[in-house]
Amino acid sequence: MGRRISVIGGDMRQITLAEYLIKDGFDISIFGFDASACGETKSSESLSDALSGSKTVVLGINPCNENMNISAPLWSDTISARTLIHHISPESTVIGGKISPDFISLCKEKNITCIDYVLREDFAVLNAVPTAEGAIELAMQELPVTLHLCNCLVTGFGRIGKILARDLAFLGADVTCSARKSSDIAWINSLGYNAVYTKNLSEHVHNCTVIFNTIPHLIFDREILRNLRPGTLIIDLASKPGGVDFKSAESLGIKVIHALSLPGKVAPATAGKIIKDTLLNILNEM
Amino acid sequence: MGRRISVIGGDMRQITLAEYLIKDGFDISIFGFDASACGETKSSESLSDALSGSKTVVLGINPCNENMNISAPLWSDTISARTLIHHISPESTVIGGKISPDFISLCKEKNITCIDYVLREDFAVLNAVPTAEGAIELAMQELPVTLHLCNCLVTGFGRIGKILARDLAFLGADVTCSARKSSDIAWINSLGYNAVYTKNLSEHVHNCTVIFNTIPHLIFDREILRNLRPGTLIIDLASKPGGVDFKSAESLGIKVIHALSLPGKVAPATAGKIIKDTLLNILNEM
Amino acid sequence: MGRRISVIGGDMRQITLAEYLIKDGFDISIFGFDASACGETKSSESLSDALSGSKTVVLGINPCNENMNISAPLWSDTISARTLIHHISPESTVIGGKISPDFISLCKEKNITCIDYVLREDFAVLNAVPTAEGAIELAMQELPVTLHLCNCLVTGFGRIGKILARDLAFLGADVTCSARKSSDIAWINSLGYNAVYTKNLSEHVHNCTVIFNTIPHLIFDREILRNLRPGTLIIDLASKPGGVDFKSAESLGIKVIHALSLPGKVAPATAGKIIKDTLLNILNEM
Amino acid sequence: MGRRISVIGGDMRQITLAEYLIKDGFDISIFGFDASACGETKSSESLSDALSGSKTVVLGINPCNENMNISAPLWSDTISARTLIHHISPESTVIGGKISPDFISLCKEKNITCIDYVLREDFAVLNAVPTAEGAIELAMQELPVTLHLCNCLVTGFGRIGKILARDLAFLGADVTCSARKSSDIAWINSLGYNAVYTKNLSEHVHNCTVIFNTIPHLIFDREILRNLRPGTLIIDLASKPGGVDFKSAESLGIKVIHALSLPGKVAPATAGKIIKDTLLNILNEM
Repeated sequence: MGRRISVIGGDMRQITLAEYLIKDGFDISIFGFDASACGETKSSESLSDALSGSKTVVLGINPCNENMNISAPLWSDTISARTLIHHISPESTVIGGKISPDFISLCKEKNITCIDYVLREDFAVLNAVPTAEGAIELAMQELPVTLHLCNCLVTGFGRIGKILARDLAFLGADVTCSARKSSDIAWINSLGYNAVYTKNLSEHVHNCTVIFNTIPHLIFDREILRNLRPGTLIIDLASKPGGVDFKSAESLGIKVIHALSLPGKVAPATAGKIIKDTLLNILNEM
Repeated sequence: MGRRISVIGGDMRQITLAEYLIKDGFDISIFGFDASACGETKSSESLSDALSGSKTVVLGINPCNENMNISAPLWSDTISARTLIHHISPESTVIGGKISPDFISLCKEKNITCIDYVLREDFAVLNAVPTAEGAIELAMQELPVTLHLCNCLVTGFGRIGKILARDLAFLGADVTCSARKSSDIAWINSLGYNAVYTKNLSEHVHNCTVIFNTIPHLIFDREILRNLRPGTLIIDLASKPGGVDFKSAESLGIKVIHALSLPGKVAPATAGKIIKDTLLNILNEM
Repeated sequence: MGRRISVIGGDMRQITLAEYLIKDGFDISIFGFDASACGETKSSESLSDALSGSKTVVLGINPCNENMNISAPLWSDTISARTLIHHISPESTVIGGKISPDFISLCKEKNITCIDYVLREDFAVLNAVPTAEGAIELAMQELPVTLHLCNCLVTGFGRIGKILARDLAFLGADVTCSARKSSDIAWINSLGYNAVYTKNLSEHVHNCTVIFNTIPHLIFDREILRNLRPGTLIIDLASKPGGVDFKSAESLGIKVIHALSLPGKVAPATAGKIIKDTLLNILNEM
Repeated sequence: MGRRISVIGGDMRQITLAEYLIKDGFDISIFGFDASACGETKSSESLSDALSGSKTVVLGINPCNENMNISAPLWSDTISARTLIHHISPESTVIGGKISPDFISLCKEKNITCIDYVLREDFAVLNAVPTAEGAIELAMQELPVTLHLCNCLVTGFGRIGKILARDLAFLGADVTCSARKSSDIAWINSLGYNAVYTKNLSEHVHNCTVIFNTIPHLIFDREILRNLRPGTLIIDLASKPGGVDFKSAESLGIKVIHALSLPGKVAPATAGKIIKDTLLNILNEM
């Protein structure tokens, strides 16, 4: 029997995570899910049962809200953060995504280490794949044309930009990517896409059919939006507040979809597997 | 001013077709559309105006129904086939998709040639692209996982099978294709997919997450469906009656989507452009 | 112990073939190779030993020459066709590539069936891969530029054209393919390459850096060669006499490489494996 | 007439560079090449003519040797560094690759700025493409099998590793990449290759047919080389001293090719274009 890990609360991603960990030979206990949500995995009878003998506790994304309750959307009951921490053995490790500073402080008091997988580079890279697929699904739904031969612009050449550009090019799209640095422009050229410096974007947007923005600050202001053709679709993948002047876009007849947290929405099982892969990396590094 | 072509009735694909032909320099008249549907193209005042001076008449898909009326879903009025043919000059060419034998007979009486683009190989090849994209969009919507790393089976290695397998592999799926002939198996291997003889399918379906069927006769009978895992998704792209025993699938907990006529549904503008490309091929060959 | 197969003569491809068949569980005897050429496989003591108990005899490519001797370039001795056939049991099957009619006649007298794998479609498709790689290796050796961003023309969209265009496009080349039929032009477009009708080639050759010809009759006559820039490289993959007016090319400063039988030259082990795959297909169909 | 740039000495790459700059509208003077090497570009009569009116001087790679002479392999005469600097106007910019500290010191005395393009990230990224193609050309020449279906290992996932893995995968190879960091392992997985931590390499090398090393320190020591099969090919792309224990490799029957400076060797015209692209980036940033 392998290492014991307790999975407490969270959504379908956590259930998938638990299933993968069981397949990998870990000794998994789960709690904070109604029986109907658990699938083949059996929930522990109580929180203390679930945590007994465990030094590794895995929580969901945004695991602790302002009221200091643990996120458990698939459970009809409530766990308070204090109760949870009370039952965790000292010197344990709590692993979750976007853990709040208040929760971390409470854990510190009891010498419990918090590790946030959302801050890790490997997690971000792996999530670029479902994010790109989600963006492609949205574009396919919205556009009256195929992505094949479609004029696509991807702004920002970070993780999501790289994977998305590749997927679009593979589907036969005519892909242009923007970046600020000459080395990224070199990458874009080496990988076979059209390259444009972000500062020169306004001259290159007129022919776009769809724009995927990944830059998390205002790029598409009224000025540049005016250069787009009416009917252009913008899929904004940048975290809030996004990179588009949404009001101006609306008034100019440009549809903008602000698509956030795509992995959990379009591919929850894959999102759960990614949490598992990241978790294994964390455990290997401990 | 280029060659005169009359576009009579049909759906948005015909409007797109007319717009493309205008861009290509043809002298286009359109009729059988309400003003609101026409976009920037202006409809002729009457059927006789639209047909005057024209030796080439383009109709929509399934252009003539059982009641011998011309398909015009974007028009609030009706054109009978007899009226249309009455106004077409003798020795003209009528080009449409899936033209009924009755309509062809009527045309023959007046020495009008009918050409059906749906029967052409180039049309079928070009349509494989929007069909494949539509199938991918459906799979993305239905599956809780990404296509990346997803175990996909494509049955049949004709036009759609070839394009779909390529798109799936590009998105990072683990693709298996089935075929009957050893030369097609060789193609599948040369292109880098896993190959399986169709007769051995039942041994290879157990690990599939999604199956795309393109073979237009019963492949997935109760016997083979029993080897699938519950939760497997089948997207049946084969024309009616399709390749799946739908009743057995339902009783075994296997979801089947019979996806027909995808190009017109998921990418009508591209479908219109494909009709245009085929039309130009037809005109070049005349 | 599996089915007995005798491998008699041929080059390194036959040795590789024998090794693969042994791995696949066949009972293999080999003859017509010096010990130094056999690797780990042990040659039979005599031709009759090698053929004893066997109903399937595999020969090399061009297995019987004009003098009615069996091809055995890795053997210091000689086997006459008559001697070979004398030792083969009646009603056996002889499998080889480009078997001469005289040899076939001799076999018929003894009720021995000859099967020529070179005539099979699966063999030709599988060989397109090493042929394409060999052509790419040649182009890389000759050109002062990378294939990435290189303007490449592939004439003919058959087996080799399809695989070669794909490989070149993957390496980042700007690929144009020519074909005669509108359906092949549709394929070229669907797969994302530039398309040109073969009859219009002369207008499209000026910007080519390298041309790969797969059409087995005169395409590049003096007329069209005059439209090429001096320094253009032509790699002619078409079987003799090829598709280029070699004399005119030379006088115009255009380098032509007539590259024949690439699989056996650039990847003999792969060529042997392809013969094995084809052989298994033949045996499965028997 | 655009900005004046003087191209002084160097090899064919510098000639190509000059030709590209002329096409881009620059006012180019060249010196340090025999007439036969210049192609259509005309050399200046003298060094002072070439430098007159110019504030930008471009030299070749390793432009100044130990004897303080300027590299000019295509010239029958010699230019000393002191003479060159004497003729360059104060406050000019000298751009070259791997400029020696002694030369930089001499320039400083006269307020001449030296910029080394070899140190730039964009230059390194662009050169990854010809390096990868050169490595592929070498592998094709050496291997008796096609890269299609070939088991390839790429050690190191930097610039060259990324481009090379992509090219190999596109050609149908079974590609494994090694990296140290979990985020690079995530990238390797997201891009669809097999991933292995560099520390675990020894367990994964047994099945390799060819290994491409890009890590510039000893990875393939006697220990790990012993796990390779005899006949395995290693192409070492890492700068001196490379990443392989060459002596042990030889004694174990493993062929190692230490392939350095591939761009200039396999694709000099592309290498010249890359210098041009980098030069334009430098000028844009000035």
